[in-house]
Amino acid sequence: MQIPLHWISLLRPCVPAYAGTNGIERYVMTTLTNSRTVRIEWGDCDPAGIIFYPRYFEIFDASTAALFERALGMTKFEMFKALPFAGFPLVRTRAKFLKPTRFGDDVTVDSSIKFGRSSFEVEHRLSLNGETCAECSETRVWVVRGADGEITSHPVPEDVLAKFQT
Amino acid sequence: MQIPLHWISLLRPCVPAYAGTNGIERYVMTTLTNSRTVRIEWGDCDPAGIIFYPRYFEIFDASTAALFERALGMTKFEMFKALPFAGFPLVRTRAKFLKPTRFGDDVTVDSSIKFGRSSFEVEHRLSLNGETCAECSETRVWVVRGADGEITSHPVPEDVLAKFQT
Amino acid sequence: MQIPLHWISLLRPCVPAYAGTNGIERYVMTTLTNSRTVRIEWGDCDPAGIIFYPRYFEIFDASTAALFERALGMTKFEMFKALPFAGFPLVRTRAKFLKPTRFGDDVTVDSSIKFGRSSFEVEHRLSLNGETCAECSETRVWVVRGADGEITSHPVPEDVLAKFQT
Amino acid sequence: MQIPLHWISLLRPCVPAYAGTNGIERYVMTTLTNSRTVRIEWGDCDPAGIIFYPRYFEIFDASTAALFERALGMTKFEMFKALPFAGFPLVRTRAKFLKPTRFGDDVTVDSSIKFGRSSFEVEHRLSLNGETCAECSETRVWVVRGADGEITSHPVPEDVLAKFQT
Repeated sequence: MQIPLHWISLLRPCVPAYAGTNGIERYVMTTLTNSRTVRIEWGDCDPAGIIFYPRYFEIFDASTAALFERALGMTKFEMFKALPFAGFPLVRTRAKFLKPTRFGDDVTVDSSIKFGRSSFEVEHRLSLNGETCAECSETRVWVVRGADGEITSHPVPEDVLAKFQT
Repeated sequence: MQIPLHWISLLRPCVPAYAGTNGIERYVMTTLTNSRTVRIEWGDCDPAGIIFYPRYFEIFDASTAALFERALGMTKFEMFKALPFAGFPLVRTRAKFLKPTRFGDDVTVDSSIKFGRSSFEVEHRLSLNGETCAECSETRVWVVRGADGEITSHPVPEDVLAKFQT
Repeated sequence: MQIPLHWISLLRPCVPAYAGTNGIERYVMTTLTNSRTVRIEWGDCDPAGIIFYPRYFEIFDASTAALFERALGMTKFEMFKALPFAGFPLVRTRAKFLKPTRFGDDVTVDSSIKFGRSSFEVEHRLSLNGETCAECSETRVWVVRGADGEITSHPVPEDVLAKFQT
Repeated sequence: MQIPLHWISLLRPCVPAYAGTNGIERYVMTTLTNSRTVRIEWGDCDPAGIIFYPRYFEIFDASTAALFERALGMTKFEMFKALPFAGFPLVRTRAKFLKPTRFGDDVTVDSSIKFGRSSFEVEHRLSLNGETCAECSETRVWVVRGADGEITSHPVPEDVLAKFQT
């Protein structure tokens, strides 16, 4: 088991990757989005009877994987085998919690993405009966494992990008 | 079990609460901070061998509770019994992940706080051997349960504030 | 928030409830079962790349709730409102882990139940492509909250039992 | 990332490993035990205000790692580097939940172990103020990764056993 020791090194090279000259224009906009339904479970909730918010981040992480699965037609597990890919660790996130959800709720998570060079941003909107309950944005970095076992950032493969633009 | 259905209603009254005339001056700065050590466990880590980031939010949530416990000399459970208090739900959070941690790491979490009127902001810095691995800021609202069972925002009690300023 | 302090007191009265004279005959056998599909997520897995086994118990807990939802046509949240019901805490469990599962697997959980008087036993079989990966049996107690707020065991309501026998 | 596909194959060879001729005598009894204190957190608890039982299994898993750390003087992470070791997956567990615990409780977990050849059994007793709240027994298998990347059961190394008998 090879463990990446420093991924600050991942962050640095990727900053210019999506900053462009004006910080915006290098993004690759995509049209593909994903929507999925998630049941909030009893065990996701805290003594206030509502979801314990770290569970939202579990839901968002799985929603990002689901978005890639929708675009690529393969699970994250299969991505490890088929692509130059060692994960897409999160480097930054922001979230707002507008309205609590509780066990028994079937919430909808809508996810969209825009790509920098080796980083990308995912926006998640979690709603119940059309009303937004939580919003989250994630900055992630596409990483690969080098011959020496080291994890480094890597441009998102062109054929991956292409799958999001169809 | 009474379940709060809408806490967007909590957010709205609290915005002016800490906005003041210039958005800053109404904050009550505090000097009390808390530092605690947390062992990252095998089960906190994902197939990349590093911490699965939603676990950080579990750690931060417990660190906020620990900060109040340090200031007030009582656990969150005791706060429910002793204070006008029905929780301090998170309404907004931001986090940066700079360097991964892994099972076996004993990380340090340093937490500090500044108070608005019924909201407050907590800053957490998670470090390993002095090096920052993650940073998180939380906006939370102090809530109470009314006679009708409804959850509403409530000014942070004066004696709670006082305990943070000694 | 009322917290049950001692549920050993729940266990004791329920032992005779399903012991009968020969320890078996008091069980009410049911024919209703439930089958559901669960995606194993990246965040459910540990550094060995396979599911971290406490996640199985989260899946089994949700599967028991799903079995009741199938039988009663209401979520656990609705059970709290519609029935003399304050939960069905687990008092005993056994599990075997035969074959690991990993992120990307869509596993099937088949759940069946037999009722004592105030306790019941749920059997879960978790399989992948027809092959059993984990088995779990749970003993749970049906509890209600008395006028004094105390949690006590309570016979499973007749109309609940009836729904499992159709 | 190498993923073990079938660990039923681990279970089979290990059955005779600790069955001996009479099913008992092959166990190596140890005297080393470990005791640790764990704070039950708000986020570990469910809407009933008490611990959500899968959290107990997270605590027990970490307690087994802590027992080995106590005996060997190294973390589980260090065991991967220093020993013929690819983990000790759980193959069977039983637990009883006698008395609920809740957020703010500082519980004690006492863990003891007895070794078969490539399997071992760990007993955990979780108590609060001297009163047992939960008991758990685990059967685990010591595994190594072969040259082909396959996971197989392996006798617990003699020098590991020796550390538990001092």
